[in-house]
Amino acid sequence: MRASFRALKEMDVAARSGLVASSFDGLGIEGLVVSKAVNIRWLSGFTGSNGNLLLTADASILVTDGRYEEQAAMELAAAGVHAQVEISRQPWAPLKTAVGSLKRLGIESHHLTVDRLAALASAFPSAELVSVGDVIDRQRQTKDSGEQSRLELAAAIADEALRLTAPNILAGGGMSERSFARDLENHMFDLGADGISFDTIVASGPNSARPHARPSGRTISPGDLVVVDFGAAIEGYGSDITRTFVCGAEPTAEQSDLYQSVRQAQAAGVAVVRDGVEQLEVDRACRDFLKSRNLGEAFVHGTGHGIGLEIHEQPILSVHSVGILLANQVVTVEPGAYLPGFGGVRVEDSVVVTRTGCTPITLSPKGLVPTWQSSQPTT
Amino acid sequence: MRASFRALKEMDVAARSGLVASSFDGLGIEGLVVSKAVNIRWLSGFTGSNGNLLLTADASILVTDGRYEEQAAMELAAAGVHAQVEISRQPWAPLKTAVGSLKRLGIESHHLTVDRLAALASAFPSAELVSVGDVIDRQRQTKDSGEQSRLELAAAIADEALRLTAPNILAGGGMSERSFARDLENHMFDLGADGISFDTIVASGPNSARPHARPSGRTISPGDLVVVDFGAAIEGYGSDITRTFVCGAEPTAEQSDLYQSVRQAQAAGVAVVRDGVEQLEVDRACRDFLKSRNLGEAFVHGTGHGIGLEIHEQPILSVHSVGILLANQVVTVEPGAYLPGFGGVRVEDSVVVTRTGCTPITLSPKGLVPTWQSSQPTT
Repeated sequence: MRASFRALKEMDVAARSGLVASSFDGLGIEGLVVSKAVNIRWLSGFTGSNGNLLLTADASILVTDGRYEEQAAMELAAAGVHAQVEISRQPWAPLKTAVGSLKRLGIESHHLTVDRLAALASAFPSAELVSVGDVIDRQRQTKDSGEQSRLELAAAIADEALRLTAPNILAGGGMSERSFARDLENHMFDLGADGISFDTIVASGPNSARPHARPSGRTISPGDLVVVDFGAAIEGYGSDITRTFVCGAEPTAEQSDLYQSVRQAQAAGVAVVRDGVEQLEVDRACRDFLKSRNLGEAFVHGTGHGIGLEIHEQPILSVHSVGILLANQVVTVEPGAYLPGFGGVRVEDSVVVTRTGCTPITLSPKGLVPTWQSSQPTT
Repeated sequence: MRASFRALKEMDVAARSGLVASSFDGLGIEGLVVSKAVNIRWLSGFTGSNGNLLLTADASILVTDGRYEEQAAMELAAAGVHAQVEISRQPWAPLKTAVGSLKRLGIESHHLTVDRLAALASAFPSAELVSVGDVIDRQRQTKDSGEQSRLELAAAIADEALRLTAPNILAGGGMSERSFARDLENHMFDLGADGISFDTIVASGPNSARPHARPSGRTISPGDLVVVDFGAAIEGYGSDITRTFVCGAEPTAEQSDLYQSVRQAQAAGVAVVRDGVEQLEVDRACRDFLKSRNLGEAFVHGTGHGIGLEIHEQPILSVHSVGILLANQVVTVEPGAYLPGFGGVRVEDSVVVTRTGCTPITLSPKGLVPTWQSSQPTT
C-alpha cells in the first residue's frame, strides 16, 4: 500500500481556534457557541457525541457530560489543545460566567435547532445571538498536510481493499451484495482503517439504477452491472471512491456505451479542477458531456463534494454551486447515469485541488473489467 | 435462535399519518412539516437521507431529490403508503400550493435548524410557523406488534452473535478489541441483521472505565474487565445490550464486588419497570442502589432510553425524567460504574413494558464468566 501510518503528518489542532476567532470582528461577534460535533472535533480533538464548545477571543470551554470526562481530557491532551472542560448535564449553565460579559454571541445556525436556540436565548438573555451559519465548515474546506495525509491513507486503504476483493466480484461467483460489502469492509479494517467512512454501497443489476441503494441479499449474477461506492476512515477523515464493474461476463455494447459516457464525463470533470476555477464549471463539464450523449436526464445527482471529517462537506459541486475551488480542498468528482430497469454506472475519484490542476488520491484502475497490476506492492 | 424472520408481524405504516393528524387540533396547526428522517421513515417507509414530508389533514407530500426517485416510489409502495412524491432540489417549492391555504403550520423545532426555519418562513410568508417539537417522536414511543417483532429479532440476533463469539473473548486469547467487535458484527450480519444499530463498544482493561470507548487495537489480556455494548438492526429497528466479562482468569474480589453492585442495581431498575410507573423511579432504583454501595459518583450516565428507529429515543430514563412509562414502550435499563484506572462494569437489557411489569428481549446470560446453555438451539 502506497500510503502508511508512518507517513501521517502532524495536525496543528490548537492553532485552529485562533483562525476561527480571527473572523469574529468581521462577523460582528465576541464569541461563538460551536454545537456541531465535527466542528468541535476539528477545534479540540474531542469526539464525544454530546458537547458544546464556547470560543471567545482568549478562551475555549468545552461542556460535555459525565460519560466523556476521561475521554475529553485524553483527547484534548492528545491534540495539544488547552481548553477548559466542564462536566455537566446542562449544556449552557457552565458557560454563564464566560458569556456574561459578551454582547454578541455567534451560533451555528445551520446546525443549531430552533428549540436549542430558544434554550440558549433563555440562558443568556443579555447576549444578542447572531446566526453565523457554517463559518467553521467553510474554514474546514482547505486541508492542511496532516489532514491530507489522513485522507490519502484512507483512500489507499480503500484502493487496496478493492484490489483484494475485486477478483471475487469480477468472477461473478454468486456472492450477495451484502457479502461483498462486508468483505470490502473487513479488508479495510484489516488494513488499519478506524472505520468505514459511510455505509458501503454495492448495487448490482437493476439495483445499480438507484444511486444510493443499500447492499441487499441479492446474488450478484453474471452480466450484472455492479456499482461499488465506499471508503475508509482514519482518525475521522473519510475517503470516497466509486467503481462500476460488469461481473462474470463480457460487457454488452449497451453497458459499454453507458460506461464510456460516464467515464469520459468524469474525466472531463477532473480535467477542469484547479485552484481558482468556478465550482460550477466542474459540474457543467460532467453534465454537458452526459447531455451530449442524451444522458442528461439520467444524471440525477450532483457532481461532487468535499471530503474530510464529514463525508459530504463543502464545497458541494452541483448546478447550484457558487464560488471557486481553492488549493488544498479535497473533493470528489462522481458523475453517474441511471437507467431504471437497465442499471446504472457511476465513476468517482477523490482529488486534492492544486494550483495547476489536481492530484487524485483514489487510484484504483477503471473499466468495466479492470486489471490490477500484479506488481503492485501489497504493503 | 428464538426469533425469526418468519415471525415478523405486519406494520400498519399507512395508519400513522392519521394518528399524527388527529393531534393537529390540539396543537393548533393545520399541517406539519416533518423534517426528521426517522419520523419520515416511520410515517412513510422512505429511508433516503434527504427529504421533507408535509402532512395535512387530508394529504401527505414527500419532497426528495432525484437520487431517491425510484427508491421513494418502491419504499412507499412496500409500506402501503399513498403519498404524493415530488422530486426537486428545492425542498419547499413543491409544497407551495399545498401550504398556500394553511394558516398555521407546525415545524419539528427540536430538529429543524435555525437556518432552515428562516428558509421555510421565507418560502411561506403567509403561514404562521408553530414549534411543535418532538410530537412525532413521542408518538413513536409505544411500539406496535410489528415494531416489537423487529426489535425482538434484532435482540435475538445480538444474543446469538454473543453466544457464538463469547468463548473467544472469555478464553482471553490475545484478541484485540477491534477484532472482537468485528467478529460480533460479522456474526450479526451472517444471522440476517440489516446492519448494526450503533458503533459496537468493546472496552477492555482501563478502557472499560470509559462508558463510550471505541474499540481500539488494544489486545484483550487475561484478567481484563471487558465491557461489550452492541446491537443489530432489522428494518431500521435497533437492539441494545451490554454485558461485562472478565477474560481468561478468575475475577478478583474487587472485580466481583463491582460487578455484583452493578448487576443488582440493574435488577432493581428492571424490577420497577411497568406501565404507569414514573420514569424517574427506574433511574432512582438503580442510582440509589449504587449510592448505597458508595458507587453513586461512579455512575456517570443515565439509566436507560427507548429503542426503536433511533437507538436513543424517548423515553429517556434519568434523573431528569418527567412522565410515566407506558405499556409497549421498549426501553433499556443499563446502570454502570466506572473507576478510572481500574475499569468499569455496565449491564444492560432491553425490555418491553407491560401492564404488570416488563418482558426482557435481551436474554444473554449474565455474570463476569457466564455460561451459555449448550442445549440452546442455534437456529
